[in-house]
Amino acid sequence: MDGAATLPDSINLDSAASLSSHGPTSAAAATGLHSASSTSARSATAPRSSLVAGDARPDAIDLSHHLSDMAKSRLTSPLKSLYGYMQQPGMLLLAGGLPPAELFPFESISAETLAKNSFKTTEVGFGAWLWSWIAGTKKTDEWTLRKFEADKTKIQLSTALQYGTAAGLAPLAKFIYDFTQRVYQPGTADFRTVINAGSTDAWGKIATTLANPGDGVLCEEWTYPSALASVWPSGLKPVTLPMDGEGMTPEGMDALLSGWNPDEHNGMSRPRILYTIPVCQNPTGATMSLERKKAIYALAVKFDVIIVEDDPYYFLQAGEYEPSPTLRSAAQPKKTETDEEFLASLVPSYLKLDYQGRVVRIDTFSKTICPGSRLGWTTCNPLFAERLERANESSTQAASGFAQALVGGLLAEQWGFEGYLRWLKGIKAQYRDRRNTLVDALLDRSHASLETRQAGGSAFEFWTREERDEKGLRVVREKGGAGAGRRILSFVSPQGGMFGTLPFFLTTLKTARHSAAASLCSKIVRTADLAHTPLAVWLRVHFSEHPSFRRKATTDLLMELWTDLAEHNVLVAPGSMFDASEFPPAPPKPEELALTEDGDGFFRIAFSTATPEQMKQAADIIGRRVEKFFRV
Amino acid sequence: MDGAATLPDSINLDSAASLSSHGPTSAAAATGLHSASSTSARSATAPRSSLVAGDARPDAIDLSHHLSDMAKSRLTSPLKSLYGYMQQPGMLLLAGGLPPAELFPFESISAETLAKNSFKTTEVGFGAWLWSWIAGTKKTDEWTLRKFEADKTKIQLSTALQYGTAAGLAPLAKFIYDFTQRVYQPGTADFRTVINAGSTDAWGKIATTLANPGDGVLCEEWTYPSALASVWPSGLKPVTLPMDGEGMTPEGMDALLSGWNPDEHNGMSRPRILYTIPVCQNPTGATMSLERKKAIYALAVKFDVIIVEDDPYYFLQAGEYEPSPTLRSAAQPKKTETDEEFLASLVPSYLKLDYQGRVVRIDTFSKTICPGSRLGWTTCNPLFAERLERANESSTQAASGFAQALVGGLLAEQWGFEGYLRWLKGIKAQYRDRRNTLVDALLDRSHASLETRQAGGSAFEFWTREERDEKGLRVVREKGGAGAGRRILSFVSPQGGMFGTLPFFLTTLKTARHSAAASLCSKIVRTADLAHTPLAVWLRVHFSEHPSFRRKATTDLLMELWTDLAEHNVLVAPGSMFDASEFPPAPPKPEELALTEDGDGFFRIAFSTATPEQMKQAADIIGRRVEKFFRV
Repeated sequence: MDGAATLPDSINLDSAASLSSHGPTSAAAATGLHSASSTSARSATAPRSSLVAGDARPDAIDLSHHLSDMAKSRLTSPLKSLYGYMQQPGMLLLAGGLPPAELFPFESISAETLAKNSFKTTEVGFGAWLWSWIAGTKKTDEWTLRKFEADKTKIQLSTALQYGTAAGLAPLAKFIYDFTQRVYQPGTADFRTVINAGSTDAWGKIATTLANPGDGVLCEEWTYPSALASVWPSGLKPVTLPMDGEGMTPEGMDALLSGWNPDEHNGMSRPRILYTIPVCQNPTGATMSLERKKAIYALAVKFDVIIVEDDPYYFLQAGEYEPSPTLRSAAQPKKTETDEEFLASLVPSYLKLDYQGRVVRIDTFSKTICPGSRLGWTTCNPLFAERLERANESSTQAASGFAQALVGGLLAEQWGFEGYLRWLKGIKAQYRDRRNTLVDALLDRSHASLETRQAGGSAFEFWTREERDEKGLRVVREKGGAGAGRRILSFVSPQGGMFGTLPFFLTTLKTARHSAAASLCSKIVRTADLAHTPLAVWLRVHFSEHPSFRRKATTDLLMELWTDLAEHNVLVAPGSMFDASEFPPAPPKPEELALTEDGDGFFRIAFSTATPEQMKQAADIIGRRVEKFFRV
Repeated sequence: MDGAATLPDSINLDSAASLSSHGPTSAAAATGLHSASSTSARSATAPRSSLVAGDARPDAIDLSHHLSDMAKSRLTSPLKSLYGYMQQPGMLLLAGGLPPAELFPFESISAETLAKNSFKTTEVGFGAWLWSWIAGTKKTDEWTLRKFEADKTKIQLSTALQYGTAAGLAPLAKFIYDFTQRVYQPGTADFRTVINAGSTDAWGKIATTLANPGDGVLCEEWTYPSALASVWPSGLKPVTLPMDGEGMTPEGMDALLSGWNPDEHNGMSRPRILYTIPVCQNPTGATMSLERKKAIYALAVKFDVIIVEDDPYYFLQAGEYEPSPTLRSAAQPKKTETDEEFLASLVPSYLKLDYQGRVVRIDTFSKTICPGSRLGWTTCNPLFAERLERANESSTQAASGFAQALVGGLLAEQWGFEGYLRWLKGIKAQYRDRRNTLVDALLDRSHASLETRQAGGSAFEFWTREERDEKGLRVVREKGGAGAGRRILSFVSPQGGMFGTLPFFLTTLKTARHSAAASLCSKIVRTADLAHTPLAVWLRVHFSEHPSFRRKATTDLLMELWTDLAEHNVLVAPGSMFDASEFPPAPPKPEELALTEDGDGFFRIAFSTATPEQMKQAADIIGRRVEKFFRV
């Protein structure tokens, strides 16, 4: 009797599979990988949708050549092959080291949560949320999770607080899979969802699963610095793609990849992984259209690139800023907006276009529930999902059971699919209103001797009327006078889904690639709190108009102004921290001390945290201090 | 004006430091590391204890040469240098991307938790916990965490569920630091504690912080397989140390390291990191004495080795198994046991011996609160702590806020230090009683035609009276008859703190190092649930006494018996999965098909999960099936 052969044969794999959260029965994912047996591939969590009658979607193609050496060396846990036995009625379990749930001190956990319709979906105007808060109109629901719940389909703390599988807590995992299916409509039938411990951790694991040390990672030239910080220690190098108002351009990507010569990149072979934030891009706020996504996806197919879509702001696509109250009111969703209309208003995910399984999508609850959940999920093909589960198993294991139970309880048991969509609509409206509040406040600068001008679309400029004439004498141009004065600030209101709206800085981005912008990072801020969101205005400061511009470097001027603002109680993020082209930060070289070809710099002004009143105060201070800073 | 120089100067570092959970004011940790500035080192979380009057402990020595290339390349986040500004009264925060807490759906979270004294600290006997459960005598406390708590020293959900610092939630971080100080009494004054997302993740980060790909990691020759699986993909290779009944031996370590020749180890240089489970070692159950720890520590100093002490079972040190009820009763703690007596009954941590800062200790709440918390902490010198915080920041960021809030609420606000010690005493007694139940049940085998014999100390043997005589005829020896029969099972009752009690397998371990034991791993179980605890009996099965021994390989016999037990409703863990000397599993070579030099193998029988009744049933089945399996 050959023990090696006996065990797998004697195991009921269907029974084993049924233990997984939502019934994987797919044995697809022919891996071509020694250590990822078909048995273990079956353990990744997703039903085989193509088995559903009428599902014409293809399964993912074989992408096993994308797995990194590290991914291949991750040991397969055939633990789940034991599940058949573990499920055996009457089985006495003396193999595992699970502490008994009776010894968990938590008997029950209760939550008081805001009603799903706590926030209006239509415009509520300045401070309305604050008012509703003070007025105490919020409704809450109270609910309880118990250690041992009589209804075994419900979340049990005895399970959630126990060692869990890398795939996640079953009720939450099922909710997430169904949500992904209905909202993103993946183009492949055999996609899978894996619960993760937050996007940052997920991205690091995805990157090391798909790239070897020394490999390049394609990314937008301005991007989320933590994403680069996550993979840099693993030897992955950012390779920046030029952007326009929609984010990265297909032309730029095509040109870079088709003309790739390793000799021009220190021997680096053509990158095969792309990191992108396609919606409300961080920090620029750019949102990519469906057409653009199709073009990028086609290039990914052409050059065999895996697209990693980090999409925390998907449901916050706020639409165009509209200064006119009438137009603003017309642009907002109707109260009668259906779920279908809401979902249709959002640019489709890359997942929907993905007929090959080469998209890895990262979702997070950080922006829609709370960041402290450290909870999200990854959607990808079964092969990658299986390897990511292994990566979880040997590090974080599973996301925290407290988080999975409480978020799972809220979503799967309290709100359900429709309830969560209703919540998302309200959150989206909240951020839209905040955006409008900040932009309104920034534009209301007449009292600070600054003029605002609309420069087409959502683009705005701030002009000071004061300048020096050719004799060096101070001249104050008359209000409304043309041709004179200096443009000292400009920005494009952040929005969603439109393109060509960031003309100011995008023409100059490429030349700034080798600037010393990033060098400031080491002195100011690199990761964590300050970089979490693009729910912000990307404010260009025209240092080239500063009277000391020829005597002082832009970086110095940027720091001077930043410090001055901070000392006057306004903390903003220096744009330099988002420059992917100079990563990691290096000491600046004197000849590179410019942030754009014109010598301008950027601040990112977030509207996510401050109250409307604080935003107005801050806008006022920014206007006054910048005006003073630029005074001749 | 030089912006680079300006910012650091203008920041109030004391104010910045005060934001951290428990007031780090140490500027020690001269790093010698470019990217780890003294500013950021200050951000690691621990008060400078040596500033306390009368604290004569030294600070850690400079161990920066231990940092791996990856650790050095982790980018420093000087975020905390902004905290001075963030704390500025009236500051308008528009830099950060923090979602407003008003949008978090969780208004409050309540917990119903077992009273700290729910479990007796003294012997309660078989099934008593079950009885007390059914009888409903458990007392619980109810408490609530609110989004906005009037008392700002209390846990606020608005903070816990927000993006957090890598150091962890302040009230929990403070509790943990104080607990570490009081319980483990570290030998260095400047030790720090960093909250982590569970031991597995922490160990992976520690290993990659202190070792480069290709480096060796010293470990016990039988060890927790997940620990190896965590670091294997990073290119770290286990280097096994011989064990005796106390765990790894100083003689073995000294011999290995002093005679280290890279040529004999495929060019690997002498390992500089040691992974050890010194208490209730997994899987052998060995607990190291203070004297042994001193000897190992001295060798670590001699060979410049960092000791990573993974110590999940520290508070579960159960004491010697005692079959006699009278002696058992005498051996258990008195009801009047003080906290000091309880702590003194536990072998001191390596931390206490550590006058150089070369010990990295990993604590977890998995065994004492619940595994699903995915929460624990790492104690180490400030330099390593700072690098580990950076590793957290670019991956998991912080442990889940739900977990930190709920465990923090329980420990810091409900139980406090003394309350948690009381809980730990009860948990320890629970596991001691479970151990006693399983061993009692295993020894109660007279009805299965097996004889049990005490073979000195806590060592026990099972003999079958049946054998074949020289003519091949079946002979049943009389009960109690000497000199005949076959010893088919043996084990040493798991306990704590004593040594020399595992004579059966320890004499043969070394010769088994190149066995095919580990090869079974790939067919059975490698990581996760089944390997989490040594709260188990390490049962030696004497396959060399099996009638088919000369015709069948031990691995085949092991699998046959394992499968037979499983089919009769008992699931145990094959010992082969813990063999560190053959890692990762490779296909077995025929000449190596023996698990000990005698051809014996091991099962690990856990007593952590099953009820007393289930343990008795399982012991009965094991006795009957093994007796049948060995029948001639």
